[in-house]
Amino acid sequence: MITSLSNDKVKYVRRLQTDRRFRAQEQAFVVEGVRWMVELIRHQISPHTLFFTADWQAAQGDILQQLGELTHLPGLLVNDAVMAAMSDTATPPGVLAVVPTPHIPLPARPSFVLILDGINTPGNLGTMLRTAAAAGVAGVLLGPGSVDVTNPKVVRGSMGALLRLPIHAMNWAQITAVVREMAVWVATVDGQMPYTAVNWRPPTALIIGGEASGAGAAGRQLATGSVTIPMHAATESLNAAIAAGVILFEARRQREAG
Amino acid sequence: MITSLSNDKVKYVRRLQTDRRFRAQEQAFVVEGVRWMVELIRHQISPHTLFFTADWQAAQGDILQQLGELTHLPGLLVNDAVMAAMSDTATPPGVLAVVPTPHIPLPARPSFVLILDGINTPGNLGTMLRTAAAAGVAGVLLGPGSVDVTNPKVVRGSMGALLRLPIHAMNWAQITAVVREMAVWVATVDGQMPYTAVNWRPPTALIIGGEASGAGAAGRQLATGSVTIPMHAATESLNAAIAAGVILFEARRQREAG
Repeated sequence: MITSLSNDKVKYVRRLQTDRRFRAQEQAFVVEGVRWMVELIRHQISPHTLFFTADWQAAQGDILQQLGELTHLPGLLVNDAVMAAMSDTATPPGVLAVVPTPHIPLPARPSFVLILDGINTPGNLGTMLRTAAAAGVAGVLLGPGSVDVTNPKVVRGSMGALLRLPIHAMNWAQITAVVREMAVWVATVDGQMPYTAVNWRPPTALIIGGEASGAGAAGRQLATGSVTIPMHAATESLNAAIAAGVILFEARRQREAG
Repeated sequence: MITSLSNDKVKYVRRLQTDRRFRAQEQAFVVEGVRWMVELIRHQISPHTLFFTADWQAAQGDILQQLGELTHLPGLLVNDAVMAAMSDTATPPGVLAVVPTPHIPLPARPSFVLILDGINTPGNLGTMLRTAAAAGVAGVLLGPGSVDVTNPKVVRGSMGALLRLPIHAMNWAQITAVVREMAVWVATVDGQMPYTAVNWRPPTALIIGGEASGAGAAGRQLATGSVTIPMHAATESLNAAIAAGVILFEARRQREAG
């Protein structure tokens, strides 16, 4: 059992949790909790390293066995203090794995692309990725200034969407190339079209900006139209992730209706 | 300038921030940041006490003056350490007010009621209240086991919705009495009806449960039907606040279409 915070493997995990450049260099990141372990099993992702507490082992022996079948390396038992030091959460879930950063290519002709412009709150970005996966988006493009998708709080909020969804950090020239044959809508608080009046069936890109500042100049320039969510009163507003969810599922509703 | 954490007013704020019973006894809670100050001005809510830092005063003199016109008491200048001690956030916004807890009655015949069952993550509850206000919900009923709406993290997420929306904590007998002439839908992962196939125009109540466990037995029993959000694949899921937003805005879409 690992009981020392000076253990090299423990120090490696702590650095991955806190150092974006190190994650990029290692092409690895950290996932925590039983729901993420189920995602690893579902997607047959073999963790580089797996850590668990005795309590978690006792409670989740089945999942631990399935994880063991994915990898040649046995999992590592750690005490609660070591788990707490490695975990990004206030209440560590008792299991944690280092996994390779996925690189899923965009489809050649994506039917629906979500462009996230300057989303710098990790929880919001994680929720948006999870929502995009549930809505059936073909890919997500992250504009300059985005939080890193392997940030621990993004990972927690995304709930496995990182493993299925093509997510690519790009500059605006690259984004422009991807969407050049698509309708491009930017969501703004004062957009011209109500989101329910837009025809979302043709190949489409939707640009969502950060909540405080909205989409930037480059995103607005790329857009062929602006879209808004009419609200109960002018004083109301929506969290950026909620706004993304409402528009993405309206697009899905129209597309499913055919 | 207040520079001591032993100041009685400072101790009072810190207790309000951390003690739910104290907030209930005092019928008061704490709001922070410039967006909340704008909400107080908009709704003409006179704060019991107002605290600000010198930096905030320099940056936001106009808003400070408008707040001063709302109240007879002058605002209190505090140093950064005192503000940090009173604030619930890691990066204190520099202004903070104690305000009376609002009690807004439900309309006699509400057209749409949101019932939140066992939402115990404060950030999610705050986002749901903000979303409900934006979608034009007539009132929110909080079932047993909910987080307190004056919890600092709920207050932060709700963005002023607390000041406009009737929000009432109730037991299931009381909830049943409110919705007895309404269609009652419960959102579940395996609901019978896609949310887009439900007719949301008649007087309706929607029950949303916590993300991990969903709505409880009492809520499910009260419901006349169950509704679900079909997703891209069976493995996908949505954050509870996103699910609430998607359904509430589909209801709004149908109602606006007439």
